[in-house]
Amino acid sequence: MNIGILTSGGDCPGLNAVIRGAVRKGIRQYGYSFSAIRDGWRGLLEDDIHPLHMVDVRGIGARGGTILGTSRTHPYSGGGPERMREVMAERSIDAVIAIGGEGTLAGASRLADDEGLPVVGVPKTIDNDLDNTDYTFGFDTAQEIATEAIDRLRTTAESHHRCMVLEVMGRNVGWIALQSGMAGGAHAILIPEFPVGYEQICEWVRSAWDRGRAPLVVVAEGFVPEDLDDQVSEAGLDKHGRVRLGGIGNHLAPIIEERTGLETRAVTLGHLQRGGSPTAYDRVLATRLGMAAVDLCHDAGWGQMASLTGTDIIRVPMAEAVDRLKFVPQHRWDEVQVLLG
Amino acid sequence: MNIGILTSGGDCPGLNAVIRGAVRKGIRQYGYSFSAIRDGWRGLLEDDIHPLHMVDVRGIGARGGTILGTSRTHPYSGGGPERMREVMAERSIDAVIAIGGEGTLAGASRLADDEGLPVVGVPKTIDNDLDNTDYTFGFDTAQEIATEAIDRLRTTAESHHRCMVLEVMGRNVGWIALQSGMAGGAHAILIPEFPVGYEQICEWVRSAWDRGRAPLVVVAEGFVPEDLDDQVSEAGLDKHGRVRLGGIGNHLAPIIEERTGLETRAVTLGHLQRGGSPTAYDRVLATRLGMAAVDLCHDAGWGQMASLTGTDIIRVPMAEAVDRLKFVPQHRWDEVQVLLG
Amino acid sequence: MNIGILTSGGDCPGLNAVIRGAVRKGIRQYGYSFSAIRDGWRGLLEDDIHPLHMVDVRGIGARGGTILGTSRTHPYSGGGPERMREVMAERSIDAVIAIGGEGTLAGASRLADDEGLPVVGVPKTIDNDLDNTDYTFGFDTAQEIATEAIDRLRTTAESHHRCMVLEVMGRNVGWIALQSGMAGGAHAILIPEFPVGYEQICEWVRSAWDRGRAPLVVVAEGFVPEDLDDQVSEAGLDKHGRVRLGGIGNHLAPIIEERTGLETRAVTLGHLQRGGSPTAYDRVLATRLGMAAVDLCHDAGWGQMASLTGTDIIRVPMAEAVDRLKFVPQHRWDEVQVLLG
Amino acid sequence: MNIGILTSGGDCPGLNAVIRGAVRKGIRQYGYSFSAIRDGWRGLLEDDIHPLHMVDVRGIGARGGTILGTSRTHPYSGGGPERMREVMAERSIDAVIAIGGEGTLAGASRLADDEGLPVVGVPKTIDNDLDNTDYTFGFDTAQEIATEAIDRLRTTAESHHRCMVLEVMGRNVGWIALQSGMAGGAHAILIPEFPVGYEQICEWVRSAWDRGRAPLVVVAEGFVPEDLDDQVSEAGLDKHGRVRLGGIGNHLAPIIEERTGLETRAVTLGHLQRGGSPTAYDRVLATRLGMAAVDLCHDAGWGQMASLTGTDIIRVPMAEAVDRLKFVPQHRWDEVQVLLG
Repeated sequence: MNIGILTSGGDCPGLNAVIRGAVRKGIRQYGYSFSAIRDGWRGLLEDDIHPLHMVDVRGIGARGGTILGTSRTHPYSGGGPERMREVMAERSIDAVIAIGGEGTLAGASRLADDEGLPVVGVPKTIDNDLDNTDYTFGFDTAQEIATEAIDRLRTTAESHHRCMVLEVMGRNVGWIALQSGMAGGAHAILIPEFPVGYEQICEWVRSAWDRGRAPLVVVAEGFVPEDLDDQVSEAGLDKHGRVRLGGIGNHLAPIIEERTGLETRAVTLGHLQRGGSPTAYDRVLATRLGMAAVDLCHDAGWGQMASLTGTDIIRVPMAEAVDRLKFVPQHRWDEVQVLLG
Repeated sequence: MNIGILTSGGDCPGLNAVIRGAVRKGIRQYGYSFSAIRDGWRGLLEDDIHPLHMVDVRGIGARGGTILGTSRTHPYSGGGPERMREVMAERSIDAVIAIGGEGTLAGASRLADDEGLPVVGVPKTIDNDLDNTDYTFGFDTAQEIATEAIDRLRTTAESHHRCMVLEVMGRNVGWIALQSGMAGGAHAILIPEFPVGYEQICEWVRSAWDRGRAPLVVVAEGFVPEDLDDQVSEAGLDKHGRVRLGGIGNHLAPIIEERTGLETRAVTLGHLQRGGSPTAYDRVLATRLGMAAVDLCHDAGWGQMASLTGTDIIRVPMAEAVDRLKFVPQHRWDEVQVLLG
Repeated sequence: MNIGILTSGGDCPGLNAVIRGAVRKGIRQYGYSFSAIRDGWRGLLEDDIHPLHMVDVRGIGARGGTILGTSRTHPYSGGGPERMREVMAERSIDAVIAIGGEGTLAGASRLADDEGLPVVGVPKTIDNDLDNTDYTFGFDTAQEIATEAIDRLRTTAESHHRCMVLEVMGRNVGWIALQSGMAGGAHAILIPEFPVGYEQICEWVRSAWDRGRAPLVVVAEGFVPEDLDDQVSEAGLDKHGRVRLGGIGNHLAPIIEERTGLETRAVTLGHLQRGGSPTAYDRVLATRLGMAAVDLCHDAGWGQMASLTGTDIIRVPMAEAVDRLKFVPQHRWDEVQVLLG
Repeated sequence: MNIGILTSGGDCPGLNAVIRGAVRKGIRQYGYSFSAIRDGWRGLLEDDIHPLHMVDVRGIGARGGTILGTSRTHPYSGGGPERMREVMAERSIDAVIAIGGEGTLAGASRLADDEGLPVVGVPKTIDNDLDNTDYTFGFDTAQEIATEAIDRLRTTAESHHRCMVLEVMGRNVGWIALQSGMAGGAHAILIPEFPVGYEQICEWVRSAWDRGRAPLVVVAEGFVPEDLDDQVSEAGLDKHGRVRLGGIGNHLAPIIEERTGLETRAVTLGHLQRGGSPTAYDRVLATRLGMAAVDLCHDAGWGQMASLTGTDIIRVPMAEAVDRLKFVPQHRWDEVQVLLG
C-alpha cells in the first residue's frame, strides 16, 4: 500500500511527530510506502507529491511546524474529488491520511463518506475545540507557552503595580485561556463560552488588587464582553463576531485602566503559541495518533479518525467529530470561579 | 470545618498547586479554615501544626516542592492513630487531606477505613504508578524534563558518534522511560515490566547505528536485564531487585560499548526530575485535585481520593487505588516496538 | 552604615540579584544594615521605607521583577533633594544605592554631584543603551527571550510559507534586535541607528524567499523606515519619533505583504521581554554589581556607579555614563550585513 | 580561496553557529568556497572531506553539536603535517579553520608556526579555560544549564530538608561551578583552583542549614579536597588527579551526610551540559568568531585565532592562548566568599 500524507490548516506543534509515527509504523510493520502531499489539499489537487522515505522523518518529532507544508486550500476547489481520484490513480496512492482541524476533517469526512475516497483523519487543533477526542496535540504546547507567559508577566506586573492582560488563542472556545489561567494563577479568565460584562472583569481586577496582588487577566481572542455595545459601539465586531481593532486584549486594557484607575498593559501571544518544539505530552499523543492512522488505513477504516479517550487511542467516525465544537462545559466554568478575583 | 493538609513521601512538582487549590476553594466556597501539618505524618504525630491562610498559598502554584515539607514517617509509628486522634482533637482538626503516593494512600486508607479517622487522599507520584487514576501530577513534568534531556544528548551523541544511555526514574514501572523515549525518539526503551536481554539491547543499538544514527537508550532505574546473572554475577541486585553499583545506566554503558564497539556514555537524571516548576498540565491537574479533595471533606467522603479519569475528576476509594500498581500494559509495549532500533 | 536601596524606571530581570548581592555583602563583610526604599525615588520622597534584612533577600536572585517595587517618579519632584535629605536624616540612612537606567542615573548623578547626597548607582537597562559599561543586566535575558521567539516563529513561518515580523524592544538603540537577529538567523534586522527604506527591507525578504527560506524580520520598536513619509503620511510619528498605530511591526507587515506578495504576519514581544527569571549571565553580573555598589558606599564613592568592562567590575562616574547613549556602532552593523537577505 | 573547516575535541553548543558564520561570510563577501573536513584532524589525515555549500549551513545556528562531527585524533598522528599537506594539495584546500579547545589550538599553532601550514583557529571550550579570550562560546550555555539544575534541586532539597550536591564540568578550572553557583545561590562552591577541606565544606553546609536553608553545594569535577588522603585513602586519584569512583559529587555526599547528620544527595550533570541549543549569547559570539576566522584567512593570518575581548573580536596568536589555562583568579574567589554558607 502507498499512503499519501497531508497536513492542512493552521500549523500546530506535533504535526511532524504524527508524520514520523505513521511512516515508521507503515514501513516497518506493514511494508507500506509513503508519499508526501505538499501543502494540504493543494498538493493533492495540483499533483505536488513526492516520495517520503524513512530518512525524511529522521529526528523530526522534536521539531515544530510540518515538513509537508500546509495551506487552507479547500478540497472541493480546483477539480475537487474527481481531480484527487485522478492524481491518486496516477501516483498509485491507495490511501490518504489527512491531518487537520475541524475544517480539514469535515472535508476528509465528505471525501470518504460521500465520494468514496480512501481517506482517514488525524485530529489537530491548538484550540482543543474538536469533539470526540479528549485532547488534541498542539494544545498542551500552547497552554504551556501561555502559562510561561503568565509567569513572566507576573513579576513585571508586581514590580510596576500594574494590571496585565494576556490575549491567547481561542476563537470559539476558551480552553487555552481556561487552563493557562488556572495554571498561571490568573485573577480573571475570559472565554467565549461564558461572556461576562466589563463590570465583572473590573471587579475581579479590583478584588485581586485589594488583596495586594498585581491583577492578571487572561482572555481568549474570541471573547466578547456581554455589554460590548454600550462601551464601544464604534469598535464593532468583525464577521466572526470578534472585537476588531487590534484584538480583545488591546480593547480591554484601556477600559480596565479607566474604570479601575490601575495602569494596565496588554500582550498578545499570537503566533508564538503555534511554533517551536512540542511538549513531551504532545509528541507522545501525536506519535500514537500517527501510528493509529496507519492501522486505520490497514483496516480500510475510511472516514474514521484516530482519537484520544482517557489514555487510549480509539477510532471514531470523522463525521461525528466535526458535528459540533467541544466547548468548555458549565462544570469546568463553575469549578474555576473560586480561583478568580 | 478546619482541614489539616499534609504532603508525604517523595516530593513532586504540583504539590503546591494542590495545596493552593484546596485552600482557596475551602475558604472561598465553604468558609473553612486550614492547618498546615509539617512533614507528612510526622507533623500529625508530633503536633507540628500551624495555621494556613490564603496569603500563605499566594503564588505558590508555579513553584516546585511543597511548602508543607515532607518526610517518610509511617502513620503507624510514634503513637499511631491514637496519637493522631488526640492531636486532631486538641487542634480542632475536623478532616485531613493526605497528599501522597502509594504508601501514603495505603496508610490514609487504613486510617479512614479501619480507624475511623476523617481522612481523604490526593494521589501523587512522579512515576505514574498509581492505579485508578489516568495520570498523576508530577509525571508530566518528569516526562518533559526527561524528554528535554534526550533532545540535548542527541546532538552531542551525533557529534561524537557515540551511544548515550539515559537513566530515568521508575522503580517498578516504566512510564517515564516509555513516554520520554517515544517523545525523544529513543532507539531502545528499557522498562521493568518487559525485561529484555543484553543482546536485544545491543541489537537495537546496532540497528540505529547502521542507519546512521547515534543510538539513544532510555532506561528506567528499576529495569533488570533478563540475563543479568550471566553477565555480572558480582554486581547482583539490592533488596528491591535493582542493579547495584551506581545504577542500571552505569551498568549498561560499558557492556554496550564492549559488545557493539561503540563508545558509550551514561547520564543519570536523578533528582533533576523531581524539582522545578510544574508544567501547565500538572498545575491544572493538581489544582483540580486539590479543589476536589475539599469537596470530599465537605461530603465526608472519608477513605476516598480525588482521581483523574479522561478529563474528569472523580472519586474512588483509596483502598482500590493502592491495591496494585499501574504497570505499562502489553498493548503500549507492543505499540512502541516499531519505533525502536 | 545604613544603606537604602531603590529600583527605579522599567523593571528588568536581575534587579533582585543586585539587591541580594548588596545586602549579603553589606551585612556579612561590613556589618551594615539596609533599608528598602519602595518604588524608586517615590519611596525616598514620601518616606516609604522599611528595614531590609538578610531573610528578605533569601532566594530572590532567580526571580524577575523587583521586591522593592519601581516607579517613574522624578527625583526633583515632590520636595526633591531637600526632602530626601530630611527623610534620610530621620531614617538614619547614610547612603543610597540607586539601581536604574539612564534617567535614574542622571538623577542620581545630580543628587550626588550637585546636591552632595551620598548616592551611588547600579546601571540597569534591558536595551543595553548605557554607555561606559560593556553590558547591562537584563539585556542578556531579553535577547534570550527574543531569540527563543524567533526560533518558534521559524517553524510556523516555514510551514505556512510566510514572512514573519518580530518587534522587539529598543526605543533608541537596536542591540536586542541586532543580537537576537544574529542568534536567530533573521533575514532582515531593522534598528534605529541605521534606517533603511521599504525597498531594502523587501529585497532582504525576497532574497531569503528566493533561496527557499521563510523570511524572518526582526525590528526594534524605535526603527523608522528611511522613506516613511512617502509610504504612510497619515501614520506619522509620535512625540518620540516612533511609528504610531500599534507599533512598527504591525506597520511593516502589510507593506511587506503588498510589495512582495508574501503572506506576512507580525508579533510584538512587548512585556514578555521584561519578565521572568534572569539568565545565569544576568544573575552573575547583577550580583557582582550589587556587591560592588556596597564597596562604593564603603569607600564613599558618591556619584559613581559599578560597571562592567570585559570581565571586570570597575567604577565610573555616573555623569560620564549618562552623557550619551551606547548606540550600535558602524562596525557591528557592517559585520552583520553578510547574514541578511 | 577554498577553506576547509574542522571541529575537534569535545563538542560544545555554538560549533554550528561558527560554521554558519564562516560559510556565509566567506561565500557572500569574498566569493570563497568551503570544504567540510569530517571529525577533526582525522578527516584531514584520512581525506574525509566534502563540499560545504550555503544550503548545508541553513538553520544550523540554533542546533547543538557539530554537523562536521568531531574526534580526538591528534594532528601529528597518522602521517601528520606531511599527509595534511598532500591532502590539502589534492583537494585544493588553501586554508584550514580549526575550531577547538586547548589541545586543538596547540596543534593548530604548531602546524602553522612550525610546519608552515595555512591554519587559523577559533577557540572553543565549555570550561572557559582558554587564556587570551574573555569568554569562549559554549560556556554560557553550560552555566545556564547548570543554573537551571540548581533552581530545580532547590525546591526538592527544601521539601525534604536535604543537602544537595551538584557536580558540574570543570577539570582544571572552576568557571562553571563559580558562575552557576553565584547565579543559583549555592551555599558552597568547590573549584580546583582553591581547594578547601572537608571541614570547611561542612561548615558552609551547617551555616546554611542553621539559617533555615536546604544547603546546596556546587562542585567542579576537578575539585580535590585539601585533606583528601586522610578521609579516603582507598579512593585515591586517577592519573589526572581527580577523585575516582563515580566522581567527586558522589564522593562528597556521604561524607557531608556523615559529618553534618543531614541527608545528602548528589547529582552529576555530565553530558547534559554539552548538548542542546546554544544560548543567544553563545550563538552571537560563535557567529562573530566564525566570520572573523574567514577574515583571518583572507589576510593570511596563519597561526592566529579570533578572540573576544570586552565586546570586540580581535586576533591573537594561538601560541599565546594555549600557553597557560585561564584559572579563576584570586579576586573572583574572594568576591564570592560573602555569598557562601
